[in-house]
Amino acid sequence: MRCSVIAVGTELLLGQIVDTNSSWIGERLAANGIDSHVQFKVGDNHRRIVSLLRGALDEADAVIMCGGLGPTHDDLTREAIAEVMGVELEMNDRVADVIREIFSSRGRRMADNNLRQAMVPRAATVIPQTRGTAPGLICPIGPNGDKVVYAVPGVPHEMYDMMERAVLPDLRRRMGDVSVIASKVVRTWGESESGLNERLAPLIERLDVEGNPTLAFLASGWEGIKVRLTAKGADAARAQAIIDRWLPEVHRHVGEFVFGYDTDTMESVVLDLLDARGWSLGLAESVTGGLVAGRITAVPGASRTFKGSIVSYASDVKFDVLSVPHGPVVSAEAAVAMADGARRVLGADVGLALTGVAGPSEQDDQPVGTLWVGLALPNQATTATLLRMPGTRDQMRQMSVISALDLLRRRLA
Amino acid sequence: MRCSVIAVGTELLLGQIVDTNSSWIGERLAANGIDSHVQFKVGDNHRRIVSLLRGALDEADAVIMCGGLGPTHDDLTREAIAEVMGVELEMNDRVADVIREIFSSRGRRMADNNLRQAMVPRAATVIPQTRGTAPGLICPIGPNGDKVVYAVPGVPHEMYDMMERAVLPDLRRRMGDVSVIASKVVRTWGESESGLNERLAPLIERLDVEGNPTLAFLASGWEGIKVRLTAKGADAARAQAIIDRWLPEVHRHVGEFVFGYDTDTMESVVLDLLDARGWSLGLAESVTGGLVAGRITAVPGASRTFKGSIVSYASDVKFDVLSVPHGPVVSAEAAVAMADGARRVLGADVGLALTGVAGPSEQDDQPVGTLWVGLALPNQATTATLLRMPGTRDQMRQMSVISALDLLRRRLA
Repeated sequence: MRCSVIAVGTELLLGQIVDTNSSWIGERLAANGIDSHVQFKVGDNHRRIVSLLRGALDEADAVIMCGGLGPTHDDLTREAIAEVMGVELEMNDRVADVIREIFSSRGRRMADNNLRQAMVPRAATVIPQTRGTAPGLICPIGPNGDKVVYAVPGVPHEMYDMMERAVLPDLRRRMGDVSVIASKVVRTWGESESGLNERLAPLIERLDVEGNPTLAFLASGWEGIKVRLTAKGADAARAQAIIDRWLPEVHRHVGEFVFGYDTDTMESVVLDLLDARGWSLGLAESVTGGLVAGRITAVPGASRTFKGSIVSYASDVKFDVLSVPHGPVVSAEAAVAMADGARRVLGADVGLALTGVAGPSEQDDQPVGTLWVGLALPNQATTATLLRMPGTRDQMRQMSVISALDLLRRRLA
Repeated sequence: MRCSVIAVGTELLLGQIVDTNSSWIGERLAANGIDSHVQFKVGDNHRRIVSLLRGALDEADAVIMCGGLGPTHDDLTREAIAEVMGVELEMNDRVADVIREIFSSRGRRMADNNLRQAMVPRAATVIPQTRGTAPGLICPIGPNGDKVVYAVPGVPHEMYDMMERAVLPDLRRRMGDVSVIASKVVRTWGESESGLNERLAPLIERLDVEGNPTLAFLASGWEGIKVRLTAKGADAARAQAIIDRWLPEVHRHVGEFVFGYDTDTMESVVLDLLDARGWSLGLAESVTGGLVAGRITAVPGASRTFKGSIVSYASDVKFDVLSVPHGPVVSAEAAVAMADGARRVLGADVGLALTGVAGPSEQDDQPVGTLWVGLALPNQATTATLLRMPGTRDQMRQMSVISALDLLRRRLA
């Protein structure tokens, strides 16, 4: 089964919006065992959309069109599909009723052009809208309907929903694949993609022979590397059983780098570990200037555990607020004093401190990339750990955030 | 002149990397008056790259290929172009010398496959590499060379450099366009794209008639809307003169929303305004949890002006460290006390404080989206301003950061 993707919208070509939808769709197609060899971006031009869609259908069994389902005159996906199908657009009364209902429930007047969204190519199946006003479409192509075009909205959360609920199941049914898919994302930090690949090589060889589950790496920038297992089974329980059998194998090879699963983040894991011990957290940040606190407070419910941060960017603030002894502020001594100071000033059980050099120039004779992490835990001597961060100013700071949180996580785990 | 873009790399189709290069290239093409009607992503497969490139050349005068110029066996862009040109690849000795020199200057051993990057299709022109090891290529197509394929690396900063230095000038020369381009990006905050469009409508009408300069909107998410003027002139001075003539017109319509130009950011503008007065800044952040400090310290040299931030997430920290009076902490009184406290505790001239409700649930009977901004300036009464932020938890926090900085900017300007 080969499925191409066409993202529709002049704003994508002009670089006003980055097309992240196609990437997401490509990832989901791969996870479902569907090949996607080409992806396209095209502007809001009827002739070009039709020509591109025809060309894509020559090469692929299925095409997913993303965007161009809105109510305005430059939303042309419905018309283009109808032309390629060789059919008329018809008003779908049920879709029209839903659109009217959405407007009236929000107490808003509906402009007539919104009913454009209820126009459906004859013989197409509607994917009911649950979030936005535009429904999706499943459009069989050719006399036997053995090829297919899907239309989904360009609004990401509407698109995600319709892909998972209707498009991917329909594609798998067309492949004759009656199996159910389960997957598990293993979050890692501290090893490169090629390093993980090398460590997992024996396992990958075995999986290449077995064919089920599959294993894929997903680079996630400053968030580490994700290792995804995807299994097929006759039903959900059997698919999950395959994951459960192979997950320990992944751990056996790279367990030391694993910090969480699926939707876990480094900060959510750290907060959970603190919560489990009933410990509160206070920070003292210099080089990261508030980024650690910013990430921790992105987690809903962080207030249960997180007290705050003393962003002591100026040396005076380190000396006066955190009682750091006068002297070099990128040092083990300063990191220890900052961690102790954060605990004391913020009334926290645990103090975590970061001081370092993000550049552009060195400081206190320490090169750019130097990071000292101070860690104060209840009833233990406060420690300072030296790490060397790579990259530009921004990279150094972002890497420092997750490295320091990982250090705390390892001490708590 | 029509120019298509092909991004090469299986990792793009699998969603392991989002293709931001094509968006950037599309934006630059538009700014240079070059049409781009279709953009493609294709995997590392020789036959498919060749087929897609041939198809793209049927429709367009030029094709920019991005990626697939690395040293490994799945870097296939050179081979694909040579096949479409109907020529052989030849070792380019000057490129080979540069690659050897890059390795020896870094004290690294060069694996032989790195010389793959010195293979160049006969009759192609090399775009010398200045940053990475892969050169770019300008490849005339057809007996008269009236179409052209460009190859640039997928590494963004190498690609940007070669686009500006070689590809865009070559495209403009081919268009017979001997003019020089100048552009000015006007940064705005506080008005929607449709709102700016409405205010600028009379100006846009005049520009549509004149045709030079052009005006475009670039949405930048939490960074506001950019308005870009692009002018063509016989030389740089004349192009700039056109910008200088029309920029005041933009100001006349939307000046109240303008905070900077080109590479300015809200935080760099605020730091410059503080610096000009010789004032230092201290923050007290609750709802934004360190994000304001994180952004300010992203600016190199922030330490000249920025003292630090008391991230007082827990109410106790507000009371104990900032001397906020006991009572509701999402209130004008708390915002004023936090701003005063930040100034006092951090020894700063200016205190800026944020307290509010990011959700998921309301707090102190204040709905999600409530933001109080406290502002303490030298020799003035401290003020509190109530703002209502839209969106999810993350959006609310990010919008709060830039809204509070804008408030400070307006008071300093």
